[in-house]
Amino acid sequence: MSSAEAALAEPDPPDRPVEAGSRFLAEIGEQPAALLRLVEQSSAFESVAAEILERKASTIRMVGHGSSDNAASYGVYAFGLLPGWTALRDSISLTVYYGAELDMAGSTVLALSQSGRTPDVVGYVERTRRNGAFTVAITNDPESALASAADAVLPLRAGPELAVAATKTYMNQVATLGLLAAHTAGQGARFEQELRAVAETMGGLIPMIQERITNVAVSFSFAGRMFVVGRGAEFATAREIALKLLETCRVAAEPLTATSLAHGPVAALDPLFPVWVIATDDETLPAALEAAARAQNAGATVIASGNAAAAVVGAPYSLPVPDAPSPLLAPLFSVLPGQLFAWALARTKGLDPDEPRGLSKVTLAR
Amino acid sequence: MSSAEAALAEPDPPDRPVEAGSRFLAEIGEQPAALLRLVEQSSAFESVAAEILERKASTIRMVGHGSSDNAASYGVYAFGLLPGWTALRDSISLTVYYGAELDMAGSTVLALSQSGRTPDVVGYVERTRRNGAFTVAITNDPESALASAADAVLPLRAGPELAVAATKTYMNQVATLGLLAAHTAGQGARFEQELRAVAETMGGLIPMIQERITNVAVSFSFAGRMFVVGRGAEFATAREIALKLLETCRVAAEPLTATSLAHGPVAALDPLFPVWVIATDDETLPAALEAAARAQNAGATVIASGNAAAAVVGAPYSLPVPDAPSPLLAPLFSVLPGQLFAWALARTKGLDPDEPRGLSKVTLAR
Repeated sequence: MSSAEAALAEPDPPDRPVEAGSRFLAEIGEQPAALLRLVEQSSAFESVAAEILERKASTIRMVGHGSSDNAASYGVYAFGLLPGWTALRDSISLTVYYGAELDMAGSTVLALSQSGRTPDVVGYVERTRRNGAFTVAITNDPESALASAADAVLPLRAGPELAVAATKTYMNQVATLGLLAAHTAGQGARFEQELRAVAETMGGLIPMIQERITNVAVSFSFAGRMFVVGRGAEFATAREIALKLLETCRVAAEPLTATSLAHGPVAALDPLFPVWVIATDDETLPAALEAAARAQNAGATVIASGNAAAAVVGAPYSLPVPDAPSPLLAPLFSVLPGQLFAWALARTKGLDPDEPRGLSKVTLAR
Repeated sequence: MSSAEAALAEPDPPDRPVEAGSRFLAEIGEQPAALLRLVEQSSAFESVAAEILERKASTIRMVGHGSSDNAASYGVYAFGLLPGWTALRDSISLTVYYGAELDMAGSTVLALSQSGRTPDVVGYVERTRRNGAFTVAITNDPESALASAADAVLPLRAGPELAVAATKTYMNQVATLGLLAAHTAGQGARFEQELRAVAETMGGLIPMIQERITNVAVSFSFAGRMFVVGRGAEFATAREIALKLLETCRVAAEPLTATSLAHGPVAALDPLFPVWVIATDDETLPAALEAAARAQNAGATVIASGNAAAAVVGAPYSLPVPDAPSPLLAPLFSVLPGQLFAWALARTKGLDPDEPRGLSKVTLAR
């Protein structure tokens, strides 16, 4: 194997027990390499994009649970902004439990599952494929039941993910949705090049954030409740950060869009109920800033992140990230402070983010 | 005015200050009458349904914030199960902030806003109407900006809603989506008849639940965090109950589907983190029961509601409701224990559900 090949090879799973949280941290650090492996698969993306276009299957139905469903929130914007198509997080239960027979001609199904074994996601693909959808499995295991059930597979190539809380598979799911949307819009080459630049910057960024995150996280060891606010493409990031806080830190963290905060939830805020605001320099920034001000008026402590964190006036905690090569890539940076904050806060609380109580890596729940 | 007309007339707003929570409670009690007023509008529903069918605008795009967005979750199932169409909670920001120009031919927009003044909902309707969608305003104010912006209006006829936290407008939004879906499927008359039966039962049910709810609510005065679990058509109910708890009781209540609970959030549970499970006798019941067992295994106190509450083995608190005339009407009953629990818990905590701190009735947030 050449050194270039070695750099792109997926890491072997470790064979001995490790310190609490070290797998989670290691996998956060592996994200730049995981992105580079994903980008190598140009031809797979080209061929799936070509089939979508040939079949005119431009209604994009995404399904998944947990982090996979969070990534799907990003897909709404990737497909909406690049090819200009409607992408939706479809209801699994409508098809799988209620047996609704919706017209699937003109639809592409993107089924997201790290393990490829989530039962109702596999069931959804089987049913919609029979009803005429073009079905694509986006999974870390190209030999899985999900991959077998679908017409095509886009392997995540994130490598073995051993920590229960997903990091690099979420990152590669988001990037996969962006890449596929770009390929369908004839912008695959540009997006690939930008993703490579993101991976390069990310390699230096992760240790920088890690170095200062524990000081910030310690200040939040009191917090049992939190809102995470993001809008547009960053709503996926808000959902993913909230889920990391829930599963690794046992914080009741709820994701909200900037506007939803004002429609009720703001009434619950107080100084012991912090709000994390993702402020990114795009068309949604004014809404995010308005939400931050609203949270501060309610007495909440605000943590600002995103590439426009500095624009959140008066936020006592700021976790900025660099600008991305183009706005749609910003969420790949924005999730990093959340992942590392969850790692640091879990350690502060004496919890093990590698194996949260009551969870297993593969979820077979109905 | 005849006595029948008087019964259907919208109530006048009261002109003097009232006891904390009494408006909220009164409006919960007004829901049966509000439903009956809505059902009177057969011809409006028929004409909107006819235009949807004539324009073949069978992709249903719903938009709204807060309770309106919660009601939209119900629309996914109403349109999916009755006419068999795809209904989605569309991204407002994609169209309004990012300016994406999606193809709207073949789409019907259902814009939900109690006041008809929510700025980005009005903006969404203006934009999508220009792009070829058939746009329908579903609002309590047929003279509002939203009503003017849309091609057609379906008035909610809930009457003045003075408590900040929505109850009867949510109820009538859910019923409106069900009625419209039924009319497009040629089942309008049946659905209307069933809605009348629901309203009649509800009139007796509300005082019965109210009588015993305070005893249950008092036991939860400690709770700062809660999950509310529902799947399928009851996910709307889970979202709405969680929002009531957030805005009136300052509980960090997060709605989850039965399956999502297992994909991470279950790790946050403990005996001081209760879980409300909506168990309804339809195809999703096994998933709800599995979620309840999972929550109990994690040590959480479970509150069971829904018409299959009795099937949740070992739940220390049970708030059952009667069977509905057909499964799609079950959510109209299921939300009642949540509304009344929020009223009772807020009172127990000394909070005023009529005017939660930091909220106003009409939200003009970006």
